[in-house]
This record gives sequence, structure tokens and C-alpha cells, in this order.
Amino acid sequence: MLIKKIKELREYLQPYKADNETIGLVPTMGALHAGHLSLIKTAKSMCDRVVVSVFVNPIQFGPNEDYTKYPRTLDEDYKLCTQNGVDAVFSPSPAEMYGEGFILSNNNLTYVCPPFNYTDKLCGKSRVGHFDGVCTVVNKLFNIAQPDFAFFGEKDAQQLIIIKKMVKDLNIPVEIIGCPLIREESGLALSSRNKYLSDDGKREALVLYKILQNIKKCYKQGITDVAALKETAFTFLNNNVELEYLEIYDADTLDELTKANDNSRAFIACKVEDVRLIDNIKLGE
Amino acid sequence: MLIKKIKELREYLQPYKADNETIGLVPTMGALHAGHLSLIKTAKSMCDRVVVSVFVNPIQFGPNEDYTKYPRTLDEDYKLCTQNGVDAVFSPSPAEMYGEGFILSNNNLTYVCPPFNYTDKLCGKSRVGHFDGVCTVVNKLFNIAQPDFAFFGEKDAQQLIIIKKMVKDLNIPVEIIGCPLIREESGLALSSRNKYLSDDGKREALVLYKILQNIKKCYKQGITDVAALKETAFTFLNNNVELEYLEIYDADTLDELTKANDNSRAFIACKVEDVRLIDNIKLGE
Repeated sequence: MLIKKIKELREYLQPYKADNETIGLVPTMGALHAGHLSLIKTAKSMCDRVVVSVFVNPIQFGPNEDYTKYPRTLDEDYKLCTQNGVDAVFSPSPAEMYGEGFILSNNNLTYVCPPFNYTDKLCGKSRVGHFDGVCTVVNKLFNIAQPDFAFFGEKDAQQLIIIKKMVKDLNIPVEIIGCPLIREESGLALSSRNKYLSDDGKREALVLYKILQNIKKCYKQGITDVAALKETAFTFLNNNVELEYLEIYDADTLDELTKANDNSRAFIACKVEDVRLIDNIKLGE
Repeated sequence: MLIKKIKELREYLQPYKADNETIGLVPTMGALHAGHLSLIKTAKSMCDRVVVSVFVNPIQFGPNEDYTKYPRTLDEDYKLCTQNGVDAVFSPSPAEMYGEGFILSNNNLTYVCPPFNYTDKLCGKSRVGHFDGVCTVVNKLFNIAQPDFAFFGEKDAQQLIIIKKMVKDLNIPVEIIGCPLIREESGLALSSRNKYLSDDGKREALVLYKILQNIKKCYKQGITDVAALKETAFTFLNNNVELEYLEIYDADTLDELTKANDNSRAFIACKVEDVRLIDNIKLGE
């Protein structure tokens, strides 16, 4: 079932809630790939009803980011959802979510703002306000669907950590389920933005995973000094890959570390063919 | 029933929700007076179950404000609630709401931030961050109790407008009911902070209502120019009353006006005996 209006989604879900069925929400921006499908599969295994939201959220894009060109493939997304047993696809317009003639500004809109200690690093450093936009739309989706469980990929590890923090801080009655990152056979992390890459670009983009794998290998071999682990990356870089960040932080709190441990996660962001790609790996797994 | 823990309140309310009983929430900071009792009375008339929260919220006080000396009278508050048919009084500790050793900072806590256009004026101008603290705690209380209705006084008119805006912007499934301001026979608006005033101070404090009444009288006589209406205040002021602001804005949006109309509201804040007092009046009623 394809639902475009907030009111209709609430009416659709109401009888299931009244019957004490559990609701799972998988928030997405569409352009669904095998990573999303693994979220849907987990949701199906845990919940009586599964809703996938498909919404390219304008307020989480910066002015120079790819909001207008972000891939929009609702027909295919809907087909994939139906084939995978999703009960409802919720795909509202920006006007439905933010009102007609809305302005992307905290002058006019109530925002949910995660703490600076979680946002002043990694993707939050270059994407100022990004996580305010993410938390605001996710908070709205939670209030609209009132799910029992919501599913997010570990691909966007900082996002997952920040959403868990929001749920805890605001006492939101939902359980957040993090699901493993899914890779192509080559090792490239699945992302809707991979569509922007040429075949050459896809080959260059393997550097992200190679760097992370090597850091994990070095850690397993006994190197725990974070600076030393980070330095191992530089032999992999070349002129076709522009490094934005490479960090090793606590996997739950994003706290800085001098010594890595099993609960540390390495995070990387690079630009390849002007496409911003991210990846991460947990050192202790 | 007195409830101190979030989990206990949820468990207490669960069977009533399962029976489709409606829940009303009256959020307060305690030191209950007849203004609060009128909120409780309205809640009782509309809802099957009424919860009053009593919580002096640290994150809505500025560093130089009266958080530590704010009146705390839980025993009396609880008695008043019981006498007035309240089903549960929810009075959590700051640690229960924000965690042990919490720090009052957006470095560590997810905040709900209402839009600047609603907070850069009136009380928000001198109380920077105040409404972020209010929206954050109210959002938490809504997520904890999940009420059908929540009741707020028009005494804190800017707060009421901002909470309505938050509910709309974040699609929170609660209906906000604004209830009329209650005055002493003298005309003084009821406030928990009136306890700080001497008898002389209470007499001086009548100036706020006199100014508002006179503005309304002038408006009814045909004066609509906002600057002219505001000027009528100055004959009432004296050295014992320090004016913080006097404004006439749209009652729903807080937009600035040059001409007043029936949907305008006059807002005033003054210090008397170093106690900050606020009052407001709708011109068209």
C-alpha cells in the first residue's frame, strides 16, 4: 500500500495498534538497495507490520549538497517493498511534512538538535546542521507512525548513534535496531550515492574499505595506538581519492581515544569523482 | 498516587490506555495555586485520567535565575491534587529526567529547539535558551505519559504558543488546550513567584494589570496604532517597577504589528522587588 498523507498512515495503522500488533518502521530516502532490503528483512522478522518511509528530507541537506539530484525512484522502491512483504510505503511530499511554502530554517521550524559532542566530528563537521535535520525528520516520523521498533543501518554509524541518543534523551517510546552494513562483493559499502559513480570511480572507491580492513588487521596484530593505526592509511590514498576524515572513536559515545579497543570503530569519508562516500568498521568484531 | 519513576508512570497508565481511556497531562513546576487548579478542573472535565507532573526543570533556568530558590512544596501540591481528583502526580528527580551527573548543556543532551521567530522576543529575549529547555522537558513528558490532551495556562502565553508550534512542527499526537489566566481579586495574575513578594510588592505589582487593562480600554475606544497604545503605559510606571518589555503582537504567531486588531495580545514583563513578573491580555475579548 502506498500512502502519501500523514493522516492516512495514522488511520491505516490504527486498527493494527488496537489489536496490539507491533509496528516496525524503516526510515529511508528511497533509491533502495540490498542494504535497505536487509533492514526490511530484519523488520519483517521482528514486527507484525512493517512500514517503509521514502522521503528525501530537504532539511538534512546543506545548500551546496545534492538534494535536487539525489536519486528518486519511487516506482521501483514501491515494487521492491511489495516484493519483500512491506505492508505500507509512506512517501509524503515535502509540503506534507513541512507545510506549503516552508522555508528550510530554524527561524520558522521547531528542530530537534542532538548534542554537540556527537555532531562536531565526522560527517557533522563538514555537514553543519545535517544531524539536526535528520533528528527532526526522524522524530516527526516516530510521532506520525508511533512504531514499536525502528531500523537503521550501521553504514551511517554516526546517525545511528545520534538517533539512539535522541531516543534516550527524549524518552521516545521506540526501540532502535541497528543492522549491519551491507557490501558489494568487491567490498564497496552499498549506498544510494554509488549510482553517481562510473565503473572507474567504483574501483577507486574500494580504497575506503581497504584502509578500514588494514586498520582492523593492524589492530588485531596488536597495534592499539590510534595515531599509528590512522597513519597506515596513507599508502592506500592517491590523487583520485580525496580524504575528508579518518578517525577511530568509541563505537557508542564517539568519544576520542588514544588507544583503540574492541569497542572502537574506524570511520572514513572520501570524495571520489566528486561523490562523497562514507564507510566504517568495528575493530573488535 | 505519587509516582517518581518514568517506568512506573508508564506502567500505571498502560491499562487505562489499553481500555481506551483518555489521558490528560497538566505539566507544572509545582507550588500549585488556583491557576493550576483551573487547569486540573478543565482536564478532569475532558479526560478519563488526569496526571499532574511536578518538576522544577533545571534546563529552563538561566545561570542567574531562581532555580535553586524556586518554591518546592510537593507535600501540599500532592494534597491539592488528591483533593481535586487527580489520578497521579508525577514528580521525578532531575537525575530521573536527565541522568545522574547530567550537565545542563547542549554538549551532552538532545534539545528540542523552537524557531527563532517565536523565541527572539518577549521572555525569550532576556531568558536565552529558556524555551529550548521548556520544549525539551515538555517533549520528554509527552513521550513519557503519551497523553491525549495537555493543558497549559494563558498566563505563560508565549510558552503556550511555542508548545502549540512544537506539536504542529513535530507531529506530536497530543492536543494542546490553553486555559485562561487566573487573577487574584486585586487583578494580580496568579504566579508561583508571587510568593517572593512582600505585601507592598504585591500592591506595586498591580501596575502590570493596570497597564494592560488601560491598553485594552484604549483599543476598545478606537486607538489601534501599536506605538500609541504602548505609550499609554508610561503614566503608570514608577521607580518601584522596572519594565522589561511591553509589546503588542499577533496572539497566534507573535508577529509584529503596526495596527492592533481583535486577535492581538499585549504582553508585559516587569521586575518588582527583584521578582520577575509577567502578564498579558487579549485585546479583542
